[in-house]
Parts: sequence; structure tokens; C-alpha cells
Amino acid sequence: MRISGEKRNNMNHSTANLVVNTKRIQDRLEALSQFGRNSNGGIDRSFGSTADLAAREHLISLLKTEIGAAIDVDPAANIWAKINTDSELPTIAIGSHHDTVQNGGRYDGALGIILAMEILSVIQEQQIGLRHPLALVSFTAEEPNPFNLSTLGSRMAAGKLDPAKLREVEDTIHHIPLATALAKAGGSFEKLGEAKLLPNLLSAFMECHIEQGKRLENKGLSLAVVSGITGIYRETIQICGEANHAGTTLMQDRHDALLAASEFCLVFEKILKDTKRDDVVGTIGHLEIFPNAVNIIPGETVLTMEVRTLEGDVTKAVVECLAAPIAVIEKKRGVHFIRRVLLDQAGVALDKIVIDKMAQAMMEMSEPYLTLASMAGHDATHLASVTRSGMLFVRSIDGKSHCPKENSMLEDIEKAGNVLLQTILLLDKELE
Amino acid sequence: MRISGEKRNNMNHSTANLVVNTKRIQDRLEALSQFGRNSNGGIDRSFGSTADLAAREHLISLLKTEIGAAIDVDPAANIWAKINTDSELPTIAIGSHHDTVQNGGRYDGALGIILAMEILSVIQEQQIGLRHPLALVSFTAEEPNPFNLSTLGSRMAAGKLDPAKLREVEDTIHHIPLATALAKAGGSFEKLGEAKLLPNLLSAFMECHIEQGKRLENKGLSLAVVSGITGIYRETIQICGEANHAGTTLMQDRHDALLAASEFCLVFEKILKDTKRDDVVGTIGHLEIFPNAVNIIPGETVLTMEVRTLEGDVTKAVVECLAAPIAVIEKKRGVHFIRRVLLDQAGVALDKIVIDKMAQAMMEMSEPYLTLASMAGHDATHLASVTRSGMLFVRSIDGKSHCPKENSMLEDIEKAGNVLLQTILLLDKELE
Repeated sequence: MRISGEKRNNMNHSTANLVVNTKRIQDRLEALSQFGRNSNGGIDRSFGSTADLAAREHLISLLKTEIGAAIDVDPAANIWAKINTDSELPTIAIGSHHDTVQNGGRYDGALGIILAMEILSVIQEQQIGLRHPLALVSFTAEEPNPFNLSTLGSRMAAGKLDPAKLREVEDTIHHIPLATALAKAGGSFEKLGEAKLLPNLLSAFMECHIEQGKRLENKGLSLAVVSGITGIYRETIQICGEANHAGTTLMQDRHDALLAASEFCLVFEKILKDTKRDDVVGTIGHLEIFPNAVNIIPGETVLTMEVRTLEGDVTKAVVECLAAPIAVIEKKRGVHFIRRVLLDQAGVALDKIVIDKMAQAMMEMSEPYLTLASMAGHDATHLASVTRSGMLFVRSIDGKSHCPKENSMLEDIEKAGNVLLQTILLLDKELE
Repeated sequence: MRISGEKRNNMNHSTANLVVNTKRIQDRLEALSQFGRNSNGGIDRSFGSTADLAAREHLISLLKTEIGAAIDVDPAANIWAKINTDSELPTIAIGSHHDTVQNGGRYDGALGIILAMEILSVIQEQQIGLRHPLALVSFTAEEPNPFNLSTLGSRMAAGKLDPAKLREVEDTIHHIPLATALAKAGGSFEKLGEAKLLPNLLSAFMECHIEQGKRLENKGLSLAVVSGITGIYRETIQICGEANHAGTTLMQDRHDALLAASEFCLVFEKILKDTKRDDVVGTIGHLEIFPNAVNIIPGETVLTMEVRTLEGDVTKAVVECLAAPIAVIEKKRGVHFIRRVLLDQAGVALDKIVIDKMAQAMMEMSEPYLTLASMAGHDATHLASVTRSGMLFVRSIDGKSHCPKENSMLEDIEKAGNVLLQTILLLDKELE
């Protein structure tokens, strides 16, 4: 099936009219969604699961037999499927991940894999001559998983994780060592460092992903060019009050750490809402009170607050706004806040050339689009540190994600496939 | 040592001038506080512990050798120590409990036991002739303990617990069966039903206890006559929102169950403060959020709210005030509250004659006092269903209780001892 670049270039197709095969996309999405399907209609396909291993076999088999790609599973168990391997230029890669959260949906990650596969299929069957090698990549363990290592594959590819620090890691549920799980998936813990991409191995990376939010839906648009990937700032806040008898302590004598936390949570929400920006969000997703007994006034609350925005100075401004109301709560309630920064991960700007080519493809197709920051982390976050990276978002129905109701319209998926295809063709012409 | 009633009656003491021996009270409090003393200066003497068993031996030994009381440990391991046993009249009992919470203080329960012991000592050494038998009682397991059974002894004495339902109960830490713990303490699980007091066995019960609050301190007074024991109303409230992605869900699209709970907690506090009453308190001591992950918007909160007041209609009014703000929160945040009553224990009025005699004793001693509802449950709560019951409160320094800093002034303790002694003498004259 493999056709050399030289032979292809002679064919002189008009690539501007190339389109993806929507029925094939639909069928392949449906086939992949069977791996890990549970009784809720959700998908359980986290890294290391039987469903993950079966999905890997399924994908590799399709990529070999239907596309004739050259398969390489790297030590991090990332699947690379390459066509046009004779070219000496660096590879253009397209991909995402095929694992899911527990009880996840059928589009998160999977859509990016199936559209990448579609691009490879179209290019192979239409015998399009490319200048660069083109690879599909499915990164290992993008989602939270029992090994407590999300974006494992893309972080290894970007050289961001030290394998020596992962030696003791095991599945917290079944206590399977990471090395065993990697070996089962075709990787190798001993060679893990070699998963790091050599400089100039890639010329670009593109990931298509569902938006997982409502910004496209709110504007009535199908697609978005992603300008960058949100920074994430997290603080653990311990609120120290005084545990006391729930009966004998007068209301005015209390130093209730839960009531102090309640005020803080509402102040935090107000500050975020007051920014009146769609690309600034904040969440208190973790909270515990102590001693947590019905007849004892809470003496301590521990919570984790998170702010997400692409712009570091906006995060800084939000965090600075918290100091004054915290001081008021401390004084009013006789409690004490102890704050500790847990994570301060800067936002990542995506590549200008990739963004421009996506925009050009949209314009040529007369497709209106949004430019958005991604509010979730993705494999592209990490790839951005080793190559030109770009992302395309597809409208999520009702913004739902990480749940069985996760859904996108087939006509939006078709548009995304065509934009992705044209962008790859434009990048192939443009990049060295 | 035991002297018959007839012999005593001939002595014709002027009992109005009788006083307790403060040094002896202090020494006995100090001796009892050694059992279970931990390195924090607190006391670990929960039911079934080695310290509990050792304290029982210590108390029984004192009651036998220094007072010459007749000891009876009932099947619930309640310790009864009786003097003037020749009388045919029903017994007047004085007591409390000798167990403590983990890291508790030296006065909660213990003060009531040591003052009861002092009354018995004074009556014996002064050879006061009483009409009624007089008993000290130390009830088993008043405090929360690893068996999850507080006020076990007084509830058994009042016939409020069905022994058949306790067959499987065990210490949740060491998995020691309740039957084993009872046997070690001198009780008997098989005969547990017999711990129920027969009608007319007692003519009255009096408990002296630290206030565990600040109402006496706020008024600058030493003692309070307890008018009744608070009712306790508890609801479990489940707040159902929607778990969602902490990055991709816009602030205005969230149904955050923690923020809804935060609003509820503050509204609940405001309603209670607005009553402007010292005898109405409310607490949310238990709260959990789900899934409790830093990157997921809380989809559900479960909390337990408690209202304490002596008057059932006040509880009802407070609970009714919650409906309107809950409806506002539900509408504003698109969440749903599911409320379930967990406990609706009515307040208990204490006995008018016992209250009157305490008041008379205070007046005769020119001791100003408060009349208060007890905001904590006590053994007297349960005894009130089988006999005339009364309680005397002693000022707690800084309101502290259930902690090593629990403290009361010796001069207040001395006053309490004298009031208790005179009240017992007045009751002995008054009651049949």
C-alpha cells in the first residue's frame, strides 16, 4: 500500500477538494466505543485496563490493514503509525489519546484518534503525495487513572517526567506496577527515557478534541481554533478555627471553620464571576472538615482551590483579590487561614503557523469559527514544548464531557475532519 | 461504719451548718484525674479502656473503705454505692459518670461523682440521720466511645435501650464485643435488661455537672439550677448539583453543590443568631462533598445539621425558617435539596420539687444563681423518665470542655458541694 513521495507528487491531485469519509468516521467511532462500554452507556477504558489493551490491538490492526501504516509503539506505549516514511523531512503528527476516565464518553480523545486515522486513510487512498512523513499518535494515559499519572505518554514524549521517579509507581487499586502495565501495552519501563522525542523528529503536532464546554454552543458555531492551553494554579487552604461542643457553645462564641470556609467559597466564586470572562474559571473541588462529627463545631477545614486561565497576570490578580476578604473572615470569625501553593503551571500558547493554517483552511471552506483558550489540559500542552503544536475544538452538545452523555454532532465532526485534512496539507506545503 | 436511721435520728444535728470538706474534694478529684492521664494533660478514659476499669476499682475501693457504702454493680456496670440501707423508703441517688471523651478534661462527669462521694462522706462522718437510703451512682459509658453507645448506663437504667439490639455491638477500634467489655467492668450482657430500675426504687436523682458553656461566666455567677435538658433535632441534607469539568464549565453554567451548601450554612447560622437567644444553638458539624476531586465541580454535598433548644416550638420555627432560603438557593443554582429528619428528641423538663429545693438551698446560702436549660445531653436526661431528676451546673472557666483545658474554680466547686448537700437534706425531709 505504501507509495513513495516521488510517485505521489506526479499525481498532481487538486487537494483543495479532498474531503473526509463521514460514514467511515462514524463507523470507526462506533467500533472504538465498544471497548470498555459499561452498563450505564459510559466507557471504562483507563490506562492498563483490559479495555485499554484491547483498544490498542484494535487500533494497531486497523492502522496496519486499512491504512498500511508503519507501527511503532515507543517505551511509553505511545502508538505511532506513520505513512510516507521515505521522506527525510521531520514528521507531521496528528493524534490524541484513546483512554477514557471511568464512566467517560465516546468522544474525548477517541475523536482525535479517529479523525487522525481518517486523514491518513484519505491521503493513502487518494494517493496524495506529501513532502513530510505523516504520523498518527495515540498517547498513553492522558486521563486520570489508577496510577495517578495523567498525560503520562505526552509528558514522556516531551521529556517532562523523570523515569527514575516512577520506579515505585503502581495502580492504587490492584497494585500492579507501572512497569508491568507498560509492558502489557507494548512499552518498556527500562527504556522509558527513550520515549523522549529527539529534537527535529517532528515538524508539527495537531490535536483535534471536543471542547468539553459550552462556548461554541453558546455562539452557535461548530469549530474553534485553540489559541493556547490554560494555566492551572492550585492552593491548599487550611482554615483553623476551634472545635467545641455543639450544644454548650453560644453562637457568638464559636470559631467555626466550616462557616469560615463557606464565606470563603462564596467570595472566591464572586471574584471569578466579577471578571466577566469566559476564559477565567475557578473551582473548589476538594474540601474536608475536622473532626466531622455531628455534635462538634468544625475546628478545621482543608480545601483546595483552583484558578484556570491562559494569562498568568489574570491568575495573579484573582489570587491577590482573595487576601482582603480572607483577612475580614479571619478577624470576624477568629479563625486563621494557612495557604500553600500546590501548583502554578503557566498557560501554553499554541503555535502561530499552525493556528494561521487552521484559520486559512476555515476561511477557504467559509467556515466561521471561534478562537478560544482551552480550559482543560491536553497532550498538546506537553507537545508544545518540543514542536509546533495546534489544537482544533469541536462543539460539545450541552458542554457535557467525562460522562456517558458526552456528545457531538456528526456534521460538526465532518467539518472538523475536513479542516484538519486541509490544515495538514497546508502545513505540509509550508513547513520545512 | 453503717449507722441505722433510728440511731441517727436521735442525734438531732443542726444540718443547716453542715459543709463539705473542700480539701478532700480537691484530693479526690486529683486522684481520679490520674486514671487515663495522657501526655497532653488530657484524660483518655472511655468506656472499656484500662483507665476506665482502673478508675472503677479506685472508686469502689474508696466508697467501701472511706464511706462504708454497700456496693452494687448492676448488669450495665453502673456502680451503685448506698448508705442508710435499712430505710424502707425509695432511694435518693446522686451521681454522674466517671468516663471521659478521648483527651477530655478532669471535671466532666468526675465532678459529679466526687461531689456525690463528698455528700456521702459528710453524712457518714457527721452521722446525719436520713429518712431515705442515699446512693452514689456512676453511670457506664456516658460519653461517646468506641462502641458508639453514649449514655449507655443511664439509658439501660431508664429501660430505653433494648439489649437484644446490642448483641452484635463491638468496639469499632479493637473489635471487643460489648458483652466482654461489660463483663470486665462488672456487668453482664446476659442480664442487661435487669439494669432497668424498678418503679419506685428511686425517689429522686440529682446530678452536678460542669456547665461546659459560658453562660455562667458571662453573668459572673458560680452556679445554675438546670430547668431542663435541650431537645436535639437533626437533619441529613443532601444537595444534588452537577459534577462537571473544573476547566471547561463556565462559571454561569455550574450547579456547584459545595457553593449551594456554603450559602445554606451561612443562612442557617443567620437564622440561629437572629433568635438572639442563648438557649438556641445550631451546628453543621458533618459535611462531605462528592466526588471531592480538585479538578471536578462538586456534584453533591451531604451534611448533617443540628438544632438544640429546650422548646420544641422554637426548634420547629427555626426549621420552618429554612424552607424559603433553600428554595431560593435551589432556584438560583439549579440544585436540589433532599432533607431527611435523623433525630427529633424532645427537650426534657426537670423536676419542679428538685428545682425548688435547689433554689431554696441557694437562697438560704445567699448564693445568687441562674436558671438555665442544659444544652448538652446528660445521664439526668434519661433518669428524668424514671424518677424526679434535677441538675446543678458549675461555672466552666472560658466555657471549655471535652479538652485538657476544661477547668472550674475550687470556690465554685465548694459552693456546688454545699448546695448539693443542703438540697439532698431538704429532699430527704420533703419526699416520701
